[in-house]
Amino acid sequence: GRKVLIVYAHQEPKSLNGSLKRVAVEELSKQGCSVTVSDLYAMQFEPRATRNDIVGCLQNSEEFNYGVETWEAYKRGCLSNDLIEEQKKVQEADLLIFQFPLYWFSMPAIMKGWMDRVLVQGFAHEFPNCYDSGLLKNKLALFSFTTGGSKEMYAKGGISGDIRYVLWPMQHGIMHFCGVKVLAPHICFAPEYVSEEKRKEMLIAWAKRLKTLWKEEPINCSPEWYFK
Amino acid sequence: GRKVLIVYAHQEPKSLNGSLKRVAVEELSKQGCSVTVSDLYAMQFEPRATRNDIVGCLQNSEEFNYGVETWEAYKRGCLSNDLIEEQKKVQEADLLIFQFPLYWFSMPAIMKGWMDRVLVQGFAHEFPNCYDSGLLKNKLALFSFTTGGSKEMYAKGGISGDIRYVLWPMQHGIMHFCGVKVLAPHICFAPEYVSEEKRKEMLIAWAKRLKTLWKEEPINCSPEWYFK
Repeated sequence: GRKVLIVYAHQEPKSLNGSLKRVAVEELSKQGCSVTVSDLYAMQFEPRATRNDIVGCLQNSEEFNYGVETWEAYKRGCLSNDLIEEQKKVQEADLLIFQFPLYWFSMPAIMKGWMDRVLVQGFAHEFPNCYDSGLLKNKLALFSFTTGGSKEMYAKGGISGDIRYVLWPMQHGIMHFCGVKVLAPHICFAPEYVSEEKRKEMLIAWAKRLKTLWKEEPINCSPEWYFK
Repeated sequence: GRKVLIVYAHQEPKSLNGSLKRVAVEELSKQGCSVTVSDLYAMQFEPRATRNDIVGCLQNSEEFNYGVETWEAYKRGCLSNDLIEEQKKVQEADLLIFQFPLYWFSMPAIMKGWMDRVLVQGFAHEFPNCYDSGLLKNKLALFSFTTGGSKEMYAKGGISGDIRYVLWPMQHGIMHFCGVKVLAPHICFAPEYVSEEKRKEMLIAWAKRLKTLWKEEPINCSPEWYFK
C-alpha cells in the first residue's frame, strides 16, 4: 500500500478544507493507502525558525545562521523532536498533499513554517542535489486549496492574475527544488460565495479525482507551465 | 518628517539583514524621518492565525471562520493587542520596508504571519476597496531581501526563474491588494557566498539608494512588470 502524508492547515474541522481533508483520508484509506495527517493548528505547530530548533550546542553561537545550524544539527541528529517527527513522515510518504486556504496568494504562515523548518538542507536538498536531483525525488506532491477570489479574478487577464502565478513559489520553489514531482493542483474557488450544493459538488469532485490519482502524470514543472 | 515602519525578520543582529536594517534606521533618521522597527523574532511575534486573535466572544463559535471573525473583531475593537499595536504602526507609516532573507521563494513564516494577521479586512481592505482602492492607499512599500541563490540562478531562463516571479504574491497579492504603492525591490544576491568587501559594498549601495528614495516613482504593479 502506498503512503500518503496530508499536511493540513485549517482551524475549523467543519470548514470546506476540513471536509476536503476528511474526504482524502477516507478515499485513500479505502484504496489501501496508509494515510497520516499533520493537522498543524491542532498540533500547535511552531512556524518560527529559531535557535530552539537545534538541541544542544551551536556550531557558531557568536553569529547564528539558521540554515547552517539546522544543516549541521540534521547531520548530528540534533534537530528538535517536532522536526524529526515531521521528517520521518515525509521520508515514508510516497505522496504529500497540502490542504489549506490560500492566504495572501500563498499558504498560511503555519504551513510556510512547516516548509521553512522541516525541509532542511541535508534532509530535503544538499547542493548540488536540488531540483531534479533533490533528495526527496521519487515522491509526489499535490497542492489542494480554497480561494477567497473567484475563478474569473484568478484568470489570465483577471485582476488577481493567473492562479498559476501563485503556484510557482510553492510548486517549483519548494517541491521541485527538493526533487519532488508535482501533480496538478486541486483548487476550489471561492467556496464561501457559492451554495451548499456547489460545495458538496466540490467534495464529490475531489473524491472522484482521488480515485484515479495514481494514474496521473506529474506536470512539467518549468516556467512554461506557469507563465506561458 | 515622514514616518517609516521597518518590518524586520532575522534572528541574528550581526547578519547582513541586521546590518541592512541598521543602515536604513540610520540613514532615514538622518533625513529627519521617524523610524519604527518591528523586530519580529525579538518580539516573538505570533505567526499563527487562531481564535486567540479575537478578544471575547465570537460571532459564530460553532464554525470558526478566521477572516469573518477578525473582520468583525476589528470593527468592534476586539482584536488582540499585538495586532492593534501593529495596525497603529502601519496606519501612521508613509513607507513600509520589509527586510528579510528569502526563505523558499517567499518571506519567512514569521513575516507571513504578520501579513496574515495584521492586514485584516476592514483595516487594510474591504471589498470592493481592494487593489487601487485598497484602504492603505497613499502608502509605499519596499521589499528588501537577501537570497541564497545567485543572480544567475534567478535570471530569466535561470534554474530558479526570474526573481520577479517570486515578487508577484508579495508585491501584487499583498501590498497592491491593500492599495499600497510598491517601490522597486532591493535585492542582495547570495551574500553568504561573496567576500566581506562585497558585503560592505551591499550596505553602501543600500544607504546610497535610501538617500534619494523619496524621489523614486513606484513600479507599475501589473503582470507586465513581473512576467513580460
